[in-house]
Amino acid sequence: MHVGVLGLGTVGSHVVGELDRHAALFAARVGEEVSVRRILVRDRGKTRPGDVLGRLTFDPDDILRDPDIELVVELMGGQEPARTMIGAALGAGKSVVTANKEVIARDGLELARIAERGDLRFEAAVAGGIPIVRALQESLAGNRLQAIYGIVNGTTNFILSRMQQGDGPEEALAEAKRLGYAEADPTDDLCAADAARKIAILASLAFDGWVDVAEVAREGIVGVGEVDVAEAAALGGVIKLLARAEATEDGLALGVSPTLIPKDHPLAAVGGVQNAIYVRGEPIGELLFEGPGAGGPATSSAVLGDIVEAARARRAGGSRVRLPREPAPLVELGAHRHSYYLRLRLRDEAGALALVAEAFARAGVSLRSVHQPLSASATALVSLLTGPTTRGQLDEARLRLRRSPSVVAEESLLLAELEHGLSRPRPT
Amino acid sequence: MHVGVLGLGTVGSHVVGELDRHAALFAARVGEEVSVRRILVRDRGKTRPGDVLGRLTFDPDDILRDPDIELVVELMGGQEPARTMIGAALGAGKSVVTANKEVIARDGLELARIAERGDLRFEAAVAGGIPIVRALQESLAGNRLQAIYGIVNGTTNFILSRMQQGDGPEEALAEAKRLGYAEADPTDDLCAADAARKIAILASLAFDGWVDVAEVAREGIVGVGEVDVAEAAALGGVIKLLARAEATEDGLALGVSPTLIPKDHPLAAVGGVQNAIYVRGEPIGELLFEGPGAGGPATSSAVLGDIVEAARARRAGGSRVRLPREPAPLVELGAHRHSYYLRLRLRDEAGALALVAEAFARAGVSLRSVHQPLSASATALVSLLTGPTTRGQLDEARLRLRRSPSVVAEESLLLAELEHGLSRPRPT
Repeated sequence: MHVGVLGLGTVGSHVVGELDRHAALFAARVGEEVSVRRILVRDRGKTRPGDVLGRLTFDPDDILRDPDIELVVELMGGQEPARTMIGAALGAGKSVVTANKEVIARDGLELARIAERGDLRFEAAVAGGIPIVRALQESLAGNRLQAIYGIVNGTTNFILSRMQQGDGPEEALAEAKRLGYAEADPTDDLCAADAARKIAILASLAFDGWVDVAEVAREGIVGVGEVDVAEAAALGGVIKLLARAEATEDGLALGVSPTLIPKDHPLAAVGGVQNAIYVRGEPIGELLFEGPGAGGPATSSAVLGDIVEAARARRAGGSRVRLPREPAPLVELGAHRHSYYLRLRLRDEAGALALVAEAFARAGVSLRSVHQPLSASATALVSLLTGPTTRGQLDEARLRLRRSPSVVAEESLLLAELEHGLSRPRPT
Repeated sequence: MHVGVLGLGTVGSHVVGELDRHAALFAARVGEEVSVRRILVRDRGKTRPGDVLGRLTFDPDDILRDPDIELVVELMGGQEPARTMIGAALGAGKSVVTANKEVIARDGLELARIAERGDLRFEAAVAGGIPIVRALQESLAGNRLQAIYGIVNGTTNFILSRMQQGDGPEEALAEAKRLGYAEADPTDDLCAADAARKIAILASLAFDGWVDVAEVAREGIVGVGEVDVAEAAALGGVIKLLARAEATEDGLALGVSPTLIPKDHPLAAVGGVQNAIYVRGEPIGELLFEGPGAGGPATSSAVLGDIVEAARARRAGGSRVRLPREPAPLVELGAHRHSYYLRLRLRDEAGALALVAEAFARAGVSLRSVHQPLSASATALVSLLTGPTTRGQLDEARLRLRRSPSVVAEESLLLAELEHGLSRPRPT
């Protein structure tokens, strides 16, 4: 089986190297030799290792129009020209493996329709080496899934983990850059665009309908300060950038936002650049997947697994990955009942806290936890966790607070996810 | 697509119920209706729900010889007649889904050869709802796996978790029985026969060659006492029944035994009846899967996923699961360097501990941690963790200890697994 590779960056080089060096292993697992015939590169000036030189091309048609190349592996990233090349390869009847989350999240529905008689695989597009895409497409295909929660962006998880250990946000970001965990321009990570793409893809697979990534409500970690991280700890929690997809009677609720979760939540202990995905459904109950979410080796593992499976399917004839062909119905996240974390600045005067408590009570919002640290200033800090409430009720309470003379400001508002079921008793 | 189900126990009833109740969902996901046509039962006297009555049969041939039944789901359990029926169904060109770990662990190689042109799936045979079988067969097929460590027996994990919380072993077993987590005769669980089957199956898939379950070294939890659990905690660890498969240059090292792991090991926090599997390989790095390892709903999830995939593959034509066709080369576990936990009884006399330390030093075995609790008796308890050592060196140290007048007895010896890489910083 001849393979054409589009792109020879970190992941591309790793994938080609593995296929070359472990050719015998891949041949045994597929049942036939799998060899890289052509590699599309852009940069004519770059020095390349000798063993790929004879296979390089600057013309995509050398791959897309070569009838001997049955399998195209797209590892360029970004929207174009990747999107067009994937479409062309599928149109030419080739099987396609890609790690491109931008393309899948934006054009997945269209590509799935083009791929109706082809084979399009993208395990590497979400959570690097964690095999969650195939799990949702195949292993869990007998379930009615209810919810997916994921830590799917390593950069922000690294930053939040460092902040938990006492770093400031800028210090944590600088360290992430130093270690190669954050790009020179980290906007896509910090502003949750990357996590939004990933949850859009996961939700599309889990709930049988494509999600338009533009519809995913998103809030980055830019507004999360050291005070919030400390207050979360005081309330018994941890702040994580949580991507979520929940099935409701009216449609899917989707979002990415900094979220307070309890310290004993299965996702709370996922530190550094690790990724983790928690799935709940019937009849499965609850599952947790944890592993490396990015980097050349982990991403290669996913790409190589897809290559093996695409090659096996092609040999066996007729098999292909089943992708949804219709868009999914969506609802607003706020339609759900959620818990929330609020941080308020109060005048340091008698009765201030009572007024706050009353504002929540009048709006019918219960309080689960409250923390007021000692303060030497003229204002007092109060952080609190509500019980499950609608966004409407919460906003009523916030309106009452804003009108109260005791409340100086609402300094922070985050989602909180207090319930979970995966039993993880700490060792005594 | 017509399905025949062999066995209508807990899992069988659940699977049939799901396929009946959610027929539209399965039809959409497979691309064609999937309906249960016949169900083989044994007990003629048992009361059954009305909706299955018309489909019951007591004659296996009503399923195995019905040309309209393309997919056979074996949920009887045990060796025979399950083994013969699976073989007959495969021989008749039907696709087979089974949850039967006894048959797969013992006769997998033979069945894989019969299934050369058929389709045999058994996701439910290992770790219930955790999709580890497909992950090893497909998602991780581009890796050279190095090690699998699993908590794959819920009963013993429940008992050890209760012992961590202070229960005695009998008390914990009684509680497990009361909650339905242990069978009336729990021998297979307590003596690690069940875990041995599961690691034999996982190793067969991960390392491309069938493992004879009889070759899996095993030691149950019967010898683990309250003192060991307490001493493990004092040394910074937890005792788990760990199933392991490790690739060495000379072959696979396989075993199941109570093993001391550090408190911050990713498997240490897996409590109660949960299962978890940790995989290490190149290029993936490390992965952790956690979820429900047993019970009707979780097992059904795995069976239903296999049914969906087997039906899709049959519709697409030609596709099948790739299973290894040859046995795997094995080596003794002891050939590896491992850490060990030992508990010794010493005479309470000056210099006793020095003699112990010297015995290890002379055998070239380093000590990583030592604990000697306060004692009011004439003998002293000492527990210790060695650094990585060969079994030969360890046995030399043990021989020296046995000859030493200061050592009354070696009361306990367990494997210890001190190294791990999955970063799981505890929230501060």
